[in-house]
Amino acid sequence: MPRPLDSTPAADGFRMPAEWEPHEGCWMAWPERPDNWREGAVPARAAYAAAASAIAASEPVTVAVSDRQFEPARAALPDAVRVVEVSTDDAWIRDTGPTFVVDGAGGRRGVDWIFNAWGGLDGGLYSPWDRDDRVAAKVLEVEGDARYRAPIVLEGGAIHVDGEGTVLTTEQCLLNRNRNPELDRPAIEAALHAHLGTEKVLWLGEGVLEDETDGHVDNLACFARPGLVLLTWVEDPADPQHGISADALARLEAATDARGRPLEVVKIPAPGPLTITAAEAAGVEPVEGTRPRRAGDRMAASYVNFYLGNSRVVYPLLDPTRDENAGAILRDVFPGREVVGVPAREILLGGGNLHCITQQVPAR
Amino acid sequence: MPRPLDSTPAADGFRMPAEWEPHEGCWMAWPERPDNWREGAVPARAAYAAAASAIAASEPVTVAVSDRQFEPARAALPDAVRVVEVSTDDAWIRDTGPTFVVDGAGGRRGVDWIFNAWGGLDGGLYSPWDRDDRVAAKVLEVEGDARYRAPIVLEGGAIHVDGEGTVLTTEQCLLNRNRNPELDRPAIEAALHAHLGTEKVLWLGEGVLEDETDGHVDNLACFARPGLVLLTWVEDPADPQHGISADALARLEAATDARGRPLEVVKIPAPGPLTITAAEAAGVEPVEGTRPRRAGDRMAASYVNFYLGNSRVVYPLLDPTRDENAGAILRDVFPGREVVGVPAREILLGGGNLHCITQQVPAR
Repeated sequence: MPRPLDSTPAADGFRMPAEWEPHEGCWMAWPERPDNWREGAVPARAAYAAAASAIAASEPVTVAVSDRQFEPARAALPDAVRVVEVSTDDAWIRDTGPTFVVDGAGGRRGVDWIFNAWGGLDGGLYSPWDRDDRVAAKVLEVEGDARYRAPIVLEGGAIHVDGEGTVLTTEQCLLNRNRNPELDRPAIEAALHAHLGTEKVLWLGEGVLEDETDGHVDNLACFARPGLVLLTWVEDPADPQHGISADALARLEAATDARGRPLEVVKIPAPGPLTITAAEAAGVEPVEGTRPRRAGDRMAASYVNFYLGNSRVVYPLLDPTRDENAGAILRDVFPGREVVGVPAREILLGGGNLHCITQQVPAR
Repeated sequence: MPRPLDSTPAADGFRMPAEWEPHEGCWMAWPERPDNWREGAVPARAAYAAAASAIAASEPVTVAVSDRQFEPARAALPDAVRVVEVSTDDAWIRDTGPTFVVDGAGGRRGVDWIFNAWGGLDGGLYSPWDRDDRVAAKVLEVEGDARYRAPIVLEGGAIHVDGEGTVLTTEQCLLNRNRNPELDRPAIEAALHAHLGTEKVLWLGEGVLEDETDGHVDNLACFARPGLVLLTWVEDPADPQHGISADALARLEAATDARGRPLEVVKIPAPGPLTITAAEAAGVEPVEGTRPRRAGDRMAASYVNFYLGNSRVVYPLLDPTRDENAGAILRDVFPGREVVGVPAREILLGGGNLHCITQQVPAR
């Protein structure tokens, strides 16, 4: 918990497990800021509560919440959900929480990446972000797990691992000048390997169109098991997302993973395109320095942004014409798990989705 | 954790264990408010950190701290101490935290008493106190223990139990009009028994002279084991504390406990009298509605206000002419434990001592 460790996870024999490996629980953080969430975040809180309920059927859920929202959150969430005070700047614990690593011998620790609100003063989404940067340390205190303070800016949503040596990420995010401008590609790769216990980086290019995280991979593609990648897909060649997904597909088809396996790719047709309505935009209170929500803006909607729990896959319902198809694909890919959709437009309006608002705690 | 239980601990087979029964850990809360703690609470924080270190050698310690003080507290406390965010109005977790109860079959729950800052708007010590009133619920969430919301105003420092059916308290506090004016003595007794699993109340009269809690028993007297009570003592008949302690002695010598045993009383000669110096008073920033700290005011100093840990008794060092004698008495009474003194004047200046700033978590 306390002062950070002096070494790295890889040096200590720790690695980040894949999301399908057993979880001890799942953390979320409560949405509050009215300059990002419409109508004082009330509709978003209902969506988060529904997501927490759906995940709680799979594994124990803890929700981080400010003192001010402690009682309302406690009342809105099911009894089985643990509610703990953790002040935040916003509600994306995938990006602000720790990345847990395990040693296979009962040890678990956490990586506390430097957080700069997806770009700091060069395109970041709000300022200040100091409370968000303290979230990982606080989660690790509650869990009683030792902490590595990684010396690079990174968000958990910018990486996916297969648990067998491979990490999947995007150039748009990890090589962005607003993250670690002093580090080149080999230096970034070395930092990832040192903190994730991986051996090979698979680089995709851009993330999903209009993704305000600078293209987090967790909205574009993810491992479903070793050797299998799910990829968000748009068939229409006139849609700019088509080219982005096609580029990712080509890179994946040309690649092998850390074990030398070629990759199978399963496409999930994306929702929409979805745009912000005038009523939705009007419910957000503008604040200088916070990214505005404007009517007509396209949202980075993707079914890849789901939560992979112990017994359940919880995925976002975003488009009645596509939701069922996405669920069918997930059922096919995860035959051992119950696939459950939850209404997620209110989460998308805030800039992310179910994977962005969750952080699994692997079993020791 | 979540919504409070509908029943009472006694009805569910739970009781408050005595402090000498095994602990799983100990909670403290970090001092912060500059209108109670001199010099921005910096000297008090050093004293709390030393106390936490001393207790941590006996059992795991968790310190509750605001977001603002999270990093300084983390840096000031030993690595073995867990630091978690819990907003407070002040740093007296004996009074704001839960009273834990156990069922002897692996079950543990917590009693969340109504808190009104030792008297509300009728002689209370500060306002508002809503964050303090949420502390017990938050501690229970972190511990994963179910919660009873007791329908009476009470602070943990106002009661001591022998774990065998007896509860020790004072009339000055529990019958004060600023706590539960609608309840008479039998109704208070019934509420105590329902929430502590006790059968007999031993009523002392007044608490220690100038005790701003309205006479908490934990500064006056405590059980050291069934049938044995420690009592703070002033020999000088001209000192008003002499009469208070003599009255308590007479009541204890006339009483039997819930098991019908007479009580042995061991006197601990008090420090001082101790008064606030001009320099100390000048370091406190006055705020309307918060009890002022005035030069020359006598402080309610007592060696009874110690922490009884698994392997250590941690007691306050307050007066070089008396400290050693107090330690010798404690060593005599607790032969199986290491008796350790920590400098505690800075804690006393805030209005309490080591027992007031700690809350043991009994083993399940």
